Parts: sequence; C-alpha cells; structure tokens
Amino acid sequence: MMRKCKNLAHRWADNTCSVRYLKKRLPIVDWLPKYNLEKFQGDLIAGLTVGLTVVPQGLAYAAVAELPLQHGLYSAFMGCFIYCVLGTSKDITLGPTALMSLMMAEYAEGQPAIAIALCLFTGLIQFVMGILRLGFLLNFMAVPVNSGFVTAAAIIIGCGQLKLILGLKDVRKPFIWNIYDTCRKIPETNHWDLILGLISFITLLILKFIKDRDWDKNRDPNVPLTRVQRVGRKAIWLVGTARNAIIVLVTTIFAGILYAYNIRPFTMTKEVPPGFPPVRPPSFSYQHGNHTVEGEEFFTHLGAGVAVIPMIGLLENIAIAKAFASKNRYTIDATQELFALGIANTVSCFFGSYPVTGSFSRTAVNSASGVMTPLGTIFTGTLVILAMLFVTPYFMYIPSAALGAVIIASVINMVEFEHITEQWRVHKPDVFVWVVTFFCVLFLGIEYGILAGVGVALALLLYNTAKPATKVEYTNSYPEIGIVRLDSGLYFPASDSIKATLHGAGLNEEPYKPVIMDLTHLSHLDFSVVRALGRSVEEYDLNKTTLYFACLREDLEEKINQAHIKNLRCFPTVQEAVDAIVAESAVDGDVNQPMLMTELPSDHVAISTDTEVLQNNGSGPRIVNKETSC
Amino acid sequence: MMRKCKNLAHRWADNTCSVRYLKKRLPIVDWLPKYNLEKFQGDLIAGLTVGLTVVPQGLAYAAVAELPLQHGLYSAFMGCFIYCVLGTSKDITLGPTALMSLMMAEYAEGQPAIAIALCLFTGLIQFVMGILRLGFLLNFMAVPVNSGFVTAAAIIIGCGQLKLILGLKDVRKPFIWNIYDTCRKIPETNHWDLILGLISFITLLILKFIKDRDWDKNRDPNVPLTRVQRVGRKAIWLVGTARNAIIVLVTTIFAGILYAYNIRPFTMTKEVPPGFPPVRPPSFSYQHGNHTVEGEEFFTHLGAGVAVIPMIGLLENIAIAKAFASKNRYTIDATQELFALGIANTVSCFFGSYPVTGSFSRTAVNSASGVMTPLGTIFTGTLVILAMLFVTPYFMYIPSAALGAVIIASVINMVEFEHITEQWRVHKPDVFVWVVTFFCVLFLGIEYGILAGVGVALALLLYNTAKPATKVEYTNSYPEIGIVRLDSGLYFPASDSIKATLHGAGLNEEPYKPVIMDLTHLSHLDFSVVRALGRSVEEYDLNKTTLYFACLREDLEEKINQAHIKNLRCFPTVQEAVDAIVAESAVDGDVNQPMLMTELPSDHVAISTDTEVLQNNGSGPRIVNKETSC
Repeated sequence: MMRKCKNLAHRWADNTCSVRYLKKRLPIVDWLPKYNLEKFQGDLIAGLTVGLTVVPQGLAYAAVAELPLQHGLYSAFMGCFIYCVLGTSKDITLGPTALMSLMMAEYAEGQPAIAIALCLFTGLIQFVMGILRLGFLLNFMAVPVNSGFVTAAAIIIGCGQLKLILGLKDVRKPFIWNIYDTCRKIPETNHWDLILGLISFITLLILKFIKDRDWDKNRDPNVPLTRVQRVGRKAIWLVGTARNAIIVLVTTIFAGILYAYNIRPFTMTKEVPPGFPPVRPPSFSYQHGNHTVEGEEFFTHLGAGVAVIPMIGLLENIAIAKAFASKNRYTIDATQELFALGIANTVSCFFGSYPVTGSFSRTAVNSASGVMTPLGTIFTGTLVILAMLFVTPYFMYIPSAALGAVIIASVINMVEFEHITEQWRVHKPDVFVWVVTFFCVLFLGIEYGILAGVGVALALLLYNTAKPATKVEYTNSYPEIGIVRLDSGLYFPASDSIKATLHGAGLNEEPYKPVIMDLTHLSHLDFSVVRALGRSVEEYDLNKTTLYFACLREDLEEKINQAHIKNLRCFPTVQEAVDAIVAESAVDGDVNQPMLMTELPSDHVAISTDTEVLQNNGSGPRIVNKETSC
Repeated sequence: MMRKCKNLAHRWADNTCSVRYLKKRLPIVDWLPKYNLEKFQGDLIAGLTVGLTVVPQGLAYAAVAELPLQHGLYSAFMGCFIYCVLGTSKDITLGPTALMSLMMAEYAEGQPAIAIALCLFTGLIQFVMGILRLGFLLNFMAVPVNSGFVTAAAIIIGCGQLKLILGLKDVRKPFIWNIYDTCRKIPETNHWDLILGLISFITLLILKFIKDRDWDKNRDPNVPLTRVQRVGRKAIWLVGTARNAIIVLVTTIFAGILYAYNIRPFTMTKEVPPGFPPVRPPSFSYQHGNHTVEGEEFFTHLGAGVAVIPMIGLLENIAIAKAFASKNRYTIDATQELFALGIANTVSCFFGSYPVTGSFSRTAVNSASGVMTPLGTIFTGTLVILAMLFVTPYFMYIPSAALGAVIIASVINMVEFEHITEQWRVHKPDVFVWVVTFFCVLFLGIEYGILAGVGVALALLLYNTAKPATKVEYTNSYPEIGIVRLDSGLYFPASDSIKATLHGAGLNEEPYKPVIMDLTHLSHLDFSVVRALGRSVEEYDLNKTTLYFACLREDLEEKINQAHIKNLRCFPTVQEAVDAIVAESAVDGDVNQPMLMTELPSDHVAISTDTEVLQNNGSGPRIVNKETSC
C-alpha cells in the first residue's frame, strides 16, 4: 500500500515536472520558439481582420446581453491575450458570443455587477472542471439537444433584435412577450430605422453570399487567373470578411453626417464611456433604486446561471475548437481548453468582462484570414484596446438598426432546421429530442430546455438498455435446443427482460427445452445481470432442464464464476454446449424418443445464415429459426 | 393513415372484448370454474395459518407505522378479498408490511387521516401506472439499490423496536436520534420488558431454526418415516409456522394472569377499539391541537410519500410474486398485478387501511401451508374480521416487548450484508452503489436514499456507454490497414470517444493509414453516432486516406446510408473491405513501395485469436495486434 502510494507520487512528480507536461499546460512554450516572420505576417493580417469584426459585434452583443455597451468591448481583449498563452487551437478567438450574451440577458438582469460576478464563477468552475477532468460530461449532450438548443437560441436572439430594426421601445424580454409586444407595437415602427435596418441586413446577406460563392466553379482549371480576376477575388474576400465593420462604418458615417445637419431620423446607440476599463475585482453588489443588493441577496440573483453558463461556454468552445482542429489537421486537448477558458474568464472579470468563450463567426474569420499561431489573437486584443481608447466617442453615431442587422445576419447561420429532416431519415426518436429541446428552450428558458433535452435523450438511451435485442433459434437435434443470441450489451435495466426471454425460450411449453445463451456480444456484466442469469439457471434447474452459456469473454467468465451460481456452465463455443447437452440427454436415456431427430418439424424452416458455428459439422445438429423477438 | 387508425381500433376492440382478455383482467374467471374440494382443503388450512400470523403482525406493524394499532388490522382484510378476484399469484397475501409501515412512520406523522389518504393515492397511482404500463420503471432499480435499501430499512425498523424491548419512552423517530435516545435512556430500562422481550426473541429464533432445519439430512431415504416421526415433523412445522401467534398468545395469557393478580410489570399495548372499522371515504383533514389541518395544508403533508410509496409497494409486490411464481412454476402478469394492487389500495382506504402490498413472510407461510388458489386469502381476511369483532378486548394484555420481538425477528431476514461480499467478487462498482444507497437511506431518508442509489447506478451505466470498448489491430498488408473492432453497442455519449479512437487508429502519425471499422456488435445507431462516424469519414477523406465500415447489420446500414455521408462505404465482411483498400492502393500506384509487404514490422506481434475472417486465406493479409485501448 505504502509502496503503491510512493509509486503514484513518483509518477505524479514525473508527470508534472517534465518538459512535456510544461508544454501541455503552457502550449506557448511549444510553438513560440519556432516562430518566424512568415507566421507573423499571417497572424497580423488575421488578428486585425478579427479585430475589425469584434468591435461592432462586441457592441451589438452587449445590447443582446442588455448590458451597457462598453462591456461588450471590455469582454473582447483579455481573453485573447490569455488564450494566446494557454490555448491549444490556433484558430479560436475568445470573446463575447451570441449564446453567452443571451445567457446574460436571462441571468444578469441588466446589472453589470451580476454579469461580472458570473464571469468570475464561470472561470473558477471551468478551471475546477479542468482539474477534475469533467469535460467528458459534454458527451451527454447529444447532437439533437445541441442543435435544438442552438436553433432556439438563434431564434430568441434574432427575434430580440427585431425591436432594433423596427425602432420599438419597451419590449419585454421573455420570448413570448417579446413576440407579442413586437407585433402589438408594429404601428409604432420608426420607418427610418426599418429602412436602414433592412438595407443593412440585405447588404450583409449579399456580401456573405458573394464571398461564399465558388467563383471558380465553371472555370477551366488549366487557365491561370488574370491579374484583374485575382485582385477582384481578393477584394470580394476582404469586403465579405469585414462586412460587419463596413456596414457599421458606412451607416455610422451616414448618420453622423445627418446628425451634423441636425437631422436625426434613426434610433442611435447609447453613449459609450471612452477609455480602458477600470481594473478592479468584482464588487458583488449593485444599486437597485435606493436599495443596495449585496451579500446573500446578491448571490441568489446569480441563480442557475452559475451552473449553466460554464457548461454552455465550454460546449461552444470545444465544439468550435474540434471543428477547426479537424479542418486544419491538428489536435486539441479538451482539458487544457478548460484551463484556458477558466483562466481567461477568471482574469477577464477584473476588466469588467462578462463570460467569454470561443466565437464561431470570428474563429471562422480568423482561420480564413490565414492565422498561423495563437499569437494572432494578440493583435485582435490590441485593436480592441485601441478602439476603446480612441474611437469610443464616435460609437454614439452608430444606428441601432445597423447593429440589429449585424446580429440577425450572424445568428441566421445557427438555425439548423435541416437537422430535423436528416434526423427523421436516420433515427426518428432523435427528432423528438430535438423538438422537446427546441420548444422547452423557447418557452421554458435555456436551462430547463437543455435539461429536458438531455433528460429525454438519456431516457431513450436507458429505455434501449432495458430492452436488449435477442434472437431465439432452435436446433433440430434431440433434444431440441433453444439458442438465445444476444445482439447487444447487457446492463442492469435489462435484468428482467433477459430473464423473461430465457424463460420464454425453454420453459413456455412442455416438454421444457434445454437452452444455450450465446454471449459473444457481452462486454460488461454487473451484479444485477449476474443475479438475473443465476436466477434463470436456477429456474431451469428446478424444471429439470438445462441453461448453459457460451462464448463468454474470459474476464467476464471469471466474474460470473465468482457469483457461485449452482450448476452454472460456460462453454467456449455454442457447438460444445450443444454437444454437451446431446451427450447428457443420451446418458439420461429417455427411451421414449429417438436418439437423434433427423427430420425438421414441419413448422420449422431451416436457415442458412448466422449458423457458421453449428454448420461446420455436416452431420451435427442444425439451427432453425423459430422466433426473433425479445 | 385513416386505415391504420381503423385497424388499431379494431385490434383494440378485439383485444379488450375477448374471453382471453377477461381472463387476463379478472383471473378468478379462469381458475374458479376448476375449483374442487381438494383445493378447498389446501386453501382453508393455508388461509387460517396466514390469518394467525397477520393478526399479531398487523398490530406490531401498526406500532412501527406509529398509528393506532387497530389500523394494522383494518389494513389486513380488504386487500385479501380483492386480490382473490384480481391477483395472478396464488401465494401472495396483501396486507401491512414492514416497509410500508416504515413509510408511514416517515410520512403519516402519526395521523391516520394522512395514512388513509396516502392509501387512496397509492392505489390510484398504481392503477394509472398499470394503464400506462409503467411497471417497467422498476427495471431501473438495480439489485444493489434494492438490497441496500431493504437492509437499511430493516435496520431502521429493528432499531426502532429496541425501545419496546427495553421499555423506553419518548424516543425520537429519525434514525440517528433514535439510536442516540435509546442509548442515552438505557439506564431507564424496564427490566421486566427486557427479560420478556429477550425470551420472546430467542424463542422465535429457535422456533424458526428448528422449522427450517433439514431433519432428513442424515436419514436413509429408503427407510420410511415412523408415525411418531411424522407427527413430530408436522408439530414442528405447525409450531414453527405459527410462532408469532404462539409467542403473542403465550405472553398475553401470562401478562393477563399477572394483571388479574394486579401485578403489572410489563409495558402493555394500548387499548384497541373493538369491532369492524367504520366504512367511509378518506376525510382529508385531521385535528392538530386546536387547529384543523385540511385542504391545501393537508395535501402538503402527504409530501414525497405520494411518489415513493406506490413505487415501493409495487416493487415489493412484484419481487415477491416473481420469486414465488418461479418457485412454484407459474407466471405472473406485472400489469395485472399493478391493477390488483391499485384497486386493493383504493378500496382498502374506505376501511381505514394504510397502504398495503404483498408481505414476504406471510406469502412464504401461505405457500408453505399448501395454498392452491388465491381463494386462500378469503379465509385469511375472514379470520382477521372475526378477530376484530371478538378478540380485540384481549389485545390490551399483549406485552409491547413481545410485539417488538416479533418484528425484530421478522426484519432480521431482510438484512443482506452478505450481498456486499458477493458484489465485491462479481462487480466492484456495485458495492459502491449498495453503500451509497444504504447510508443515504439511513441518514437522509428513504426517498433520497433510493434516488441517490438509482442515480449512482445510472451514472455508472452511462459512464460505460460513454467509453465503448474497442480494439485496434493492424494487417500486415500493403498498405498497412487498421482494423477497429467495436466490442459493445454505440450510444450517443460515445460519439466523441469513437471519433478519437478512429482518429488514433489511422491519423496519429504519418503516413496516415486506411482504417476499417468492424461494426459486427452494433445493434443501435442514433443520430449523434451517425454524425460522429460521418465526421470521421470526412476527416479521413481530408487526409487523403480511407475509413470503411464492415459487418454492419442490414437495417443499420440502411439508416446510415440515409445520412448521405460523402464517401461512406460499408462492406459485408472485413475481408472485402481489406481487398477493396489493397486494390485501390494498387490503382493509385504508389511506386515507392513494394506492392505487398510480406514481413511483419519488428514491433508487431502476430496473434492467432480473433482473426478468423482474415486468416481463411493463407496467402492474404494477416492481422497483427498493436494496441488494445479505447
């Protein structure tokens, strides 16, 4: 025992003190020494492009989060710096995202203090999850749950932005009320906002479309591009990639000019205080009217967000990291991602950030702009800081409708209705999971929606484990022997079902038949299953017939032998078990029956598949199919 | 669609209106026409024997339930009559049980009105569960959870009776306080109670022991029993079986005689009102001091009991019914048992009963006494009614210590510590499940204990589904091909793990290897798994190598084809997939490599097992083992 502990301690010391471990926990140590000018160029261009995207997105997402707009920018730089040191994916850029902003709208109640506190706890919890290696919990969020949740979230966010495009005021937050209020107030639409919003939105869609179009589809690959073509392609790519920044810039200049002539048709963005955020720890208190909310009362306001936000943040980050790792052929380390995300959130909250995670749209921009190492994010973060220091006074000229259009155009890609038809074709129960998740997220809230989806998906899984697939066949030997073939694993919820199947195979009608259970597919045995098998052996024994097992994996045979089941016998092959039963029956000497039946009973049909074990011996008993039910 | 509905309606009508259906839902219709005198004799003797047991047990269990003692008797007759008509097991006798009484102690707060209301809701819920066929939910209560729960319940009940044997007063109910108060008050022990209790307890154990002893172990089976021996055996069996009644009778007569001489050393049972219980619907209100608890307040007092008690009652009943059905070779119908139990509880509550279910000890007595049909329970019920009408005045002379001894001797069999060692040998994680259930039931209460146990058992199951067992082998062909063999089913939590395994098999080091996944053991495919497999195919494709699937079941192949995965190919056998890859590689014409490697690389070890598919062709590629990890 002592020695084992010592060994463990040694191994731990070896693991944690090695250079390899250092590189694993500080990935920058691995890639920085190999840095060169070529990589620098790629990183610089990509970093600045992402920076141009994140500034308008940060403002827009802060509006989604219902927080003062500067917090969108405050959330957009510190994560970049930390991920550069700790991250394992070169493409990911941390910062404010649509989902996290929606979470804030649900949990932060418009109070930056709550959002910042949630950022701290999100970071700490993600860090602890990394230490405990709890990342595997994400495995239980099935694809339909994820897809249903993301689609519903996109719809909530998108519908929430309609009020900006219509220029409406006093629209309530919960989804149903939001829709109701928006419809009810349509007569109050600000037509100028609507026109600007629609133009922005359509322009964004067109820019995205021409960027994504495959311009080389009908081109002869052997003819080189002309210079004009090459410059044109580059320009299209640049305009398409920086489309958010361009739309915001153009509409802002336009609104600014009108403003200078004292024409103010548009709803404008609120003023954003200039400069670097104040660096201070989370305050855990805020003013609500004349009342200071602090202490226990403050923490009750954090609510379920403390549990949900770290998981959603991790989910989003890992999903994006994996997608780009697979596309660009490198591997990520899920545990290290948890550490990076945890530390990024923990540190960010000192700079007034709300919870951050990897952003899908900006990561795509980063990757497409040719980023080479995580250093690219340094340039993004620097650009955000420069914007905060020098450009904030001009943010008040950004029309709200343009920001709304930017968000709606971003989240439109998150809608995955096409998943439903795909699921319908592949596995219908998953459509049910999708629909439950979708509607519960829409109408009951994010956390209940996800819980409901995960619950339904697990229930379906467990229902499957309770009904293992089996197939019963009969030999044409004397005595007639039932062969029960198990098609899947056997877990405790299947105990009753397997007892019933075994009972049905041999004891349903007299004369009782001996039965062999083919356990080739068994990969796991728990106590309940062993008990059920033992009970079945006992039952066969009581009824003066036999139940043998065959093809059990060696380690599982050892296990089942440990249960000391009376009269338990396991054979390496079904054939040997059949031979043993036939031999025993000969010894018992049942004189009323011929020793070997050669004719098949009329209601039995000989089958030719799935009988390799028994058919190797032409004169031996053959298996015939009788029923194929569980 | 219309036609399908019509067909369903027809089938439903056929099913519900047939004689077979009637026999299924009213089993008495099946067995009563075949009734005869021989069966009557067996039923009469068994029914009366059980009646002699249930009267003292009923009083004792009512004390466990902390209800007025008459409710133990009120619970003991109506269930018998109803089960006779609706039950599918000839052995089961419904009535008060140790577990149900413990539940009452936890939920009824000593108020008969609560107990009676719980009886009504238990019945209704069980009936609805029968309609919805929810009996399968019991499958999720693994053996270790059940065993840990029953053991803890036995200890709670047994320790709760110590106060009766010691003659202590004012002992608090929750387990820890019960133990603490009992220990603290030991100096206040009533020595006469202790002496009587110990004598009763030891006598009960001795009677049980001599009854259960195999008297024929050393006897020559060819020598017939003498008349004395036969009478002796019969007497031992009778005394052993009626031991509870005998102990209570003897101690009551003894105490009654002392009482007649005005000697009152023992703590006596409270007076029991004579006669048949008042027949009335549950009142849903009770007096608490000067305050009438009713309406909403009353229903909040029912608490979690409404959810837990029907499940536990069903569990106990089904477990017992199955055990005796298997022993006595008949089958029970779980759904019909739910109906029988539900109606029995619903009707019983009009007679002042608390929730009833099948009693293990009395069912054993019934079976051993030679019961032939469910009619035996009619005699039991009648005897209870006679006892209520004519014997109740004498109940006040029953010493409490004797009742305590009866209960402790009964629940001692429920303690299943030996399960732990068995689980340790067979499947160690189940010991953890047992221990969690046991301690949570003891210290947190029954419902939390069971929830915790079920939760841990399911978590272990799900953890297993997230880590499917796989084995990776390599052929010695050119190109070297990885063969990934899946040893178990594949459910959505395994998506990530399987993607990682497939990545590791072929894409971990250059040159990338083609890989074949052997899906023989797959019995289920959900959308998440299909997606994961599709992503893996894409990944191999991106890396200019191939991932093929083999041995997929036909219906699953159809499913996976519905996902329209680019470059997906499934082969009927691994060999065909290997041949296809070797042929493709020859077409590609990689001139730097010999067309077929015949030598194994030095770090590979040829294996001889598990290679039947590939070794059938002596000159073809062979599989070599490289790693066996997930």
